[in-house]
Amino acid sequence: MCDNTSLQQEITNLKYNEDGLIPAIAQQHDTGEVLMMAWMNESSIKESLQTGRVCYWSRSRQKYWRKGEESGQIQYLNSMHFDCDNDTILLQVNQIGPACHTGRKTCFYKLVKDDEVTIDSKPLIDPKDLYKK
Amino acid sequence: MCDNTSLQQEITNLKYNEDGLIPAIAQQHDTGEVLMMAWMNESSIKESLQTGRVCYWSRSRQKYWRKGEESGQIQYLNSMHFDCDNDTILLQVNQIGPACHTGRKTCFYKLVKDDEVTIDSKPLIDPKDLYKK
Repeated sequence: MCDNTSLQQEITNLKYNEDGLIPAIAQQHDTGEVLMMAWMNESSIKESLQTGRVCYWSRSRQKYWRKGEESGQIQYLNSMHFDCDNDTILLQVNQIGPACHTGRKTCFYKLVKDDEVTIDSKPLIDPKDLYKK
Repeated sequence: MCDNTSLQQEITNLKYNEDGLIPAIAQQHDTGEVLMMAWMNESSIKESLQTGRVCYWSRSRQKYWRKGEESGQIQYLNSMHFDCDNDTILLQVNQIGPACHTGRKTCFYKLVKDDEVTIDSKPLIDPKDLYKK
């Protein structure tokens, strides 16, 4: 992938922010569960398409973030969509184990309900065991 | 909703960007389809919880964007989640008609496939008919 000039151009033409980043939503392809949102740059989009494994740009660490590189919780890319105005990406993925650093499948576990924020999912893995690899 | 001090505090403590905005993903509550991503500020989050209808902040128009106000394609709020690090919101919604200004249910209709970007969904409504109301 990405040897094609027209696709290269489409990727270059996406609307990146002033830091060269675009938000990317990861959704588990078979259950539809929204797992996380993170940021990509032009190179990480191309790498993800080439390798079939999702690569983000970590804003906090200012480096490429190959999801699962440290934890083993790899995100395989099933499909990639751009939105109507080319400023957001939807990744349908196969997430091995938890997507969240808390050990939960999804990062979206803080539910606003009855005037409170409650936790509505449990860790699959103790987060202490996530980064041993 | 939002009369509760602890919830108010949780909303205030979300990580907004330098413009006071936080990204919000809208997902159709029953099908799991990811519809769009837009931006909210503290007031639009509170208004959405109070009214049960999703209100964003439009960056291009620099004003509140009560989804469906002009098109009639209202987004009713089913649930709201914050993510692990409080910098993204997931809205599960009941989207009346299309979410996208092109008349499609979802804004994510540009599929990267076989080295090309192809269109993988059709408009439900002719976009010319969307903004007549």
